[in-house]
Amino acid sequence: MANTDHIVLLDSLGSPFGMRVRLALAAKGIEYQIEEEDQTQSKSSLLLKVNPVHKKIPVLIHNGKPICESLIIVEYIDEVWKDRCPLLPADPYQRAKAKFWADFIDKMVHPPSDKVWAANGEEQEAGKKEFIDGIKLLEGELKSNPYFGGETLGFLDIAFLPLYYRFHTFETFGKFSIEAECPKLVAWGKRCMEEEFVYASLPHPHKIYDLVVQYKKKLGI
Amino acid sequence: MANTDHIVLLDSLGSPFGMRVRLALAAKGIEYQIEEEDQTQSKSSLLLKVNPVHKKIPVLIHNGKPICESLIIVEYIDEVWKDRCPLLPADPYQRAKAKFWADFIDKMVHPPSDKVWAANGEEQEAGKKEFIDGIKLLEGELKSNPYFGGETLGFLDIAFLPLYYRFHTFETFGKFSIEAECPKLVAWGKRCMEEEFVYASLPHPHKIYDLVVQYKKKLGI
Repeated sequence: MANTDHIVLLDSLGSPFGMRVRLALAAKGIEYQIEEEDQTQSKSSLLLKVNPVHKKIPVLIHNGKPICESLIIVEYIDEVWKDRCPLLPADPYQRAKAKFWADFIDKMVHPPSDKVWAANGEEQEAGKKEFIDGIKLLEGELKSNPYFGGETLGFLDIAFLPLYYRFHTFETFGKFSIEAECPKLVAWGKRCMEEEFVYASLPHPHKIYDLVVQYKKKLGI
Repeated sequence: MANTDHIVLLDSLGSPFGMRVRLALAAKGIEYQIEEEDQTQSKSSLLLKVNPVHKKIPVLIHNGKPICESLIIVEYIDEVWKDRCPLLPADPYQRAKAKFWADFIDKMVHPPSDKVWAANGEEQEAGKKEFIDGIKLLEGELKSNPYFGGETLGFLDIAFLPLYYRFHTFETFGKFSIEAECPKLVAWGKRCMEEEFVYASLPHPHKIYDLVVQYKKKLGI
């Protein structure tokens, strides 16, 4: 791409979906500007303009063109900056598998994970069980590889890492140990966190916990 | 791909998700075998083996390797048989837009469309409104093009066509005219149906209506 690329990420600090985009941009070494969207306030006129359908962050605005939906944005970044650090595998079957599990995270892991920090009692317990069932399936997909991408961190790692950054939050609110259930997955997360581009581009899990606590207060839950 | 390719589609006749895969295979002129899954019976051992996570059709089994989730399967087909009839645009931004609207169909149009044929009273009315709101947004995306793919039928056309094939069903159960609401979209659907590979690979909308009637009877609704 040209040096004149103008890249803006409309995001809210701590959003697991926005974190995917930050990771993909950081993995590729792409410079960008952040426009912070305050999720406790009314939606900004910029957000309503660039994502009129879902009105949700993250939105990547590349030379004035908005791209929405985190996994679609990560694929877009991978396609535009294909000359460096490929995120999706080259093989169509492996690509389909990575996309399948990323889709699985959004359909089957994110929804129950929200119950772990936002709900109480039976609803929270059901959320914990469903969440653990989901991440156990993902753990199985790691096999004996260091990363979901195989020898290097790739698309599925980026799709899942923001949830790993919430493990501390889930454990604190849910009063359970994820490591006891999924030790290989926690080892994977620690391995990813050692990558410079990862720890340099995401807020620390303790900071995410603080953000979730603030968010719960504002929601009154 | 080699002439020895062995391609099996595990599907149920009339499934809008399976129809996407039939369309993509037909667009590319790929020969395949169908394994019919009877959705009113227990799930087959083949389905449980090849899609143990979601246990849902369609599943494409290509040389023994299963690929699940209809949009992921269509992308896979487009990537493996990339030498003929490209479905996704080449440009990353146009690709992202096509994926965005296909994802929109699954998140915002399919769920209310089910209420149009399966629900009654207020729930059905709410489903009709939400469905019309969704397809109006899609109609806007057609602009002045003959297809969502521009001059040729592509990925987003394939993602949406199975719902067009249900318009007759929705209109009959919902007692409303989709053409009155979205004339350009209905004209698009008729244009697509004139493509030989489309009408040759999908059951007629009246047949789909019969299948939905049978399915409702079996569900007792």
